[in-house]
Amino acid sequence: MFRDTLRKMKIALAQLNYHIGNFDSNVRKIKDVIARAKEQNADLVIFAELTVCGYPPRDFLEFEDFITKCNESVEDIARECTGIAAIIGAPATNSNEKGKPLYNAAYFLRSGKVESVHHKYLLPNYDVFDENRYFEPAGSVSCIELEGTTIAVTICEDLWTYGNENLYSSSPMDELIKERPDLIVNLSASPFDYRHMEERKATFSNCARQFNLPLIFVNHVGAQTELIFDGGSFVLDSSGKMTNQLKMFEEDFQILDLNNPGNESSVQQYSKLELIHDALVLGIRDYFTKSGLKKAILGLSGGIDSAVTLALTSSALGKENVTALLLPSKFSSDHSVADAEQLCRTLGCPYEKISIEEINETFEKTLKPYFKDLPPDITEENVQARIRAVLLMGFANKFGHILLNTSNKSEKSVGYGTMYGDMAGGLAILGDVYKTEVFELAEYINRNEEIIPQNSIDKPPSAELRPDQKDVDSLPEYDILDKILFEYIENRNGPKELVEMGFSKELVNRVLKLVNMSEYKRFQAPPILRVSSKAFGMGRRMPIVGKYLS
Amino acid sequence: MFRDTLRKMKIALAQLNYHIGNFDSNVRKIKDVIARAKEQNADLVIFAELTVCGYPPRDFLEFEDFITKCNESVEDIARECTGIAAIIGAPATNSNEKGKPLYNAAYFLRSGKVESVHHKYLLPNYDVFDENRYFEPAGSVSCIELEGTTIAVTICEDLWTYGNENLYSSSPMDELIKERPDLIVNLSASPFDYRHMEERKATFSNCARQFNLPLIFVNHVGAQTELIFDGGSFVLDSSGKMTNQLKMFEEDFQILDLNNPGNESSVQQYSKLELIHDALVLGIRDYFTKSGLKKAILGLSGGIDSAVTLALTSSALGKENVTALLLPSKFSSDHSVADAEQLCRTLGCPYEKISIEEINETFEKTLKPYFKDLPPDITEENVQARIRAVLLMGFANKFGHILLNTSNKSEKSVGYGTMYGDMAGGLAILGDVYKTEVFELAEYINRNEEIIPQNSIDKPPSAELRPDQKDVDSLPEYDILDKILFEYIENRNGPKELVEMGFSKELVNRVLKLVNMSEYKRFQAPPILRVSSKAFGMGRRMPIVGKYLS
Repeated sequence: MFRDTLRKMKIALAQLNYHIGNFDSNVRKIKDVIARAKEQNADLVIFAELTVCGYPPRDFLEFEDFITKCNESVEDIARECTGIAAIIGAPATNSNEKGKPLYNAAYFLRSGKVESVHHKYLLPNYDVFDENRYFEPAGSVSCIELEGTTIAVTICEDLWTYGNENLYSSSPMDELIKERPDLIVNLSASPFDYRHMEERKATFSNCARQFNLPLIFVNHVGAQTELIFDGGSFVLDSSGKMTNQLKMFEEDFQILDLNNPGNESSVQQYSKLELIHDALVLGIRDYFTKSGLKKAILGLSGGIDSAVTLALTSSALGKENVTALLLPSKFSSDHSVADAEQLCRTLGCPYEKISIEEINETFEKTLKPYFKDLPPDITEENVQARIRAVLLMGFANKFGHILLNTSNKSEKSVGYGTMYGDMAGGLAILGDVYKTEVFELAEYINRNEEIIPQNSIDKPPSAELRPDQKDVDSLPEYDILDKILFEYIENRNGPKELVEMGFSKELVNRVLKLVNMSEYKRFQAPPILRVSSKAFGMGRRMPIVGKYLS
Repeated sequence: MFRDTLRKMKIALAQLNYHIGNFDSNVRKIKDVIARAKEQNADLVIFAELTVCGYPPRDFLEFEDFITKCNESVEDIARECTGIAAIIGAPATNSNEKGKPLYNAAYFLRSGKVESVHHKYLLPNYDVFDENRYFEPAGSVSCIELEGTTIAVTICEDLWTYGNENLYSSSPMDELIKERPDLIVNLSASPFDYRHMEERKATFSNCARQFNLPLIFVNHVGAQTELIFDGGSFVLDSSGKMTNQLKMFEEDFQILDLNNPGNESSVQQYSKLELIHDALVLGIRDYFTKSGLKKAILGLSGGIDSAVTLALTSSALGKENVTALLLPSKFSSDHSVADAEQLCRTLGCPYEKISIEEINETFEKTLKPYFKDLPPDITEENVQARIRAVLLMGFANKFGHILLNTSNKSEKSVGYGTMYGDMAGGLAILGDVYKTEVFELAEYINRNEEIIPQNSIDKPPSAELRPDQKDVDSLPEYDILDKILFEYIENRNGPKELVEMGFSKELVNRVLKLVNMSEYKRFQAPPILRVSSKAFGMGRRMPIVGKYLS
């Protein structure tokens, strides 16, 4: 399973949480790990893609100063690499006259200097990826030689041709294999979605089997605004079986003993809800940590979305760091307020109850001369939602909180929310979680004890912005709605395919129209923690004033 | 200057305003123009890039149904091409096993059918462009033969290698020239910025001269949310001189008489401010027309930004379709209200004056038990700005207006604005216009008569959210600030270069930090009409929780 030359080598895997552009912090972490690997007599330590600058650095890559800092960081780290070798990711300058100015590169560091630079060959440019925007693809590829072992170095997408869509007409392994490598290494920045670990295993196993070579995959861990990197770096033997896996959602460091590899049965398995839960907790924590802020605030309605958001944030930041505001109006039911208070007491989070009634009346009075006797409509509902946002942002500004957005993916899809009202917030926690999944998440949170009040789970969803309002007055039942949305958004099925699946043409047209007509609302929505294969935000780019299915 | 075979040909240029995804409307327009060209005995009519679906269609391209509609539209249009030929832009399916599923293509239509399909070779993937996301680059290129004339068909970026950065290592003209063409044709979707027409002329002239061939450039006109297409399609002779130009910012149709070409001196020249003014008016008009809405509303403070926004929108939509709300607080100066009222009277726009004082007091009273005796700070200022947004959105919801955002580019750069307050709106009119340019635009609007009150131009800028507040209390003087911002944002100069230009290190660090720390605010800002070479929005993609120069 592992050749002899390889068995003799001590290889360390470094799975770290980087911070985009924070060179001081990234370099310090990397140096600490190199020192630790040296102490443990490792021969080689492998880091992830674009290690020194974090991923994705986006348009920072267009600044010379940023690239200079990347280069200086690489040199700085190289100086530590005496008595040990390292492979780290960083941008590399394209010194040819033609082409984009940078490569996405893996640096092989040894003897205190950069020994070779290996460019990424396949550049992903779909969904959340924009690598063609910055990088020139590799013109040539070559292996690394270390202690008699030949290592094929690849970067993330480079290996995603095995068992996937035929996006590319060649693979760097076509060339690298000619050097008869003993091992394939892949430096990645592979973002989480709840199915992605399975896809990674399948793809990389295909690759290992095809070349009959072991494969080491080193990933980022930690969240960069929307994108959550789940870690889970792993080692496959030459039959494609997983022998080792690093932690999910945590920094980790492991020195491989290839004489005594693990086996697939020892690798921890996660359910979809466990993955989503842990990803969201990491996403929240990192957004705050990396923003340099500690405290969150949210409006707690007694409904399921804000309840789950509060529970997740309490896990991420500590109960004392999340304040809940209960902001009832005359349309809020007693049980809503009671459910909200119960949750705060259960979690131990600070909370305040502030009626919006008097402010709402003052707005009504101020607007009366202009609205005259026009019947109440969505306007008055929106005013209530916006008053709540003004109060929440007032607290946030005064006390240094970040406002959490509690909208779920179903609402965001169909535009069922008020801009500058309940759609406000610095970060959308559940914006990539459909309503039916929010219920599942609530059950998951309650798996050992009742944290989310059962009543918040059981009662019919309502915005409580007019008497006896229910979501189903405006929307299809969520179990049907979410299925249509999933097929349209995640699977990109159109009206024809949806009708063929058995949904009525009228319902399909209605839902797709709602989705397409809500682009203008989503455009101004907060960043959304991405947990699915297609989240709103950087991975889904739609025209706003288009007229298609709308 | 034009060869004989070419002189005999009657070529029509069709510069149209397309609507993304609105196949019915786009196809009807195209057919009408073909009929008109036929009536006038044209041999060939040339349209722009991605004609049938509009540009940019973005992720609509990932839907099979959308591509089917594109294909059906092309076939439908081809049937009209009897007794005339046409070149139109549309996506084409990649029938190879490998590569992305689509090409960006030019279809040559003749004898009622698609005669040949020509794929785009160079795919822009910088700034606002994402073409690698959707398209496979052309594998091969070939010319069109028509009436003894050989035409090299290219699509937009295909010719942008002449005199520009060396982004690409080859050009389709390298191959096409081997077929000895008589003419180069370029179908474009080239978005406006106030310097781009000069760049187009220079680039395409370089190309015409290099190959000693005449060149026809056909562009889109009209706005698609942020992106404004300025038209200005043109003809260059083989010496690179412009002989004909179609209208700027308007649909246009012209049949060329190459026996009697025009000359460069007859081509209309525009000043920077004229261009920006006309582009913004078109941008506003198309946002409303294509959204299917007519009426706008805005908060009119008496300051320069909202005054210029109102004047532009009044030009775009008609004075009766823009309502101004004057929303004074106790901090609003008398002259502000007087200036605002004067502007409304001058323009003849409907307006209302509504004090926010009582609502503000109710908020203060409601928040008092929690804020206790904490000194007033930015919180109380933000509450005022947000109350205004609630009132404006209340009117917008009740009466069907779209709220205009009036923030300028300087404010948006440094985060000098209130989220869900003055940063709200459906469309940001001046979000790509620096404060110093807003003043110039006001002077331009006043070039014949005083429309913007002179007092709004002369007085020091103030948010009027606390007593005697001035922008310079918080920000550097705008003439200095805007220079630094321009160098950082448009020219991507970093701290080192800025200090070398003579700005103090302290000031540079302060401004760059403000810009980088405001990403989270801009993320939720409305779409901005793009008039510069680097606007906030789809063309500038930055991490939010990064830590670089911040």
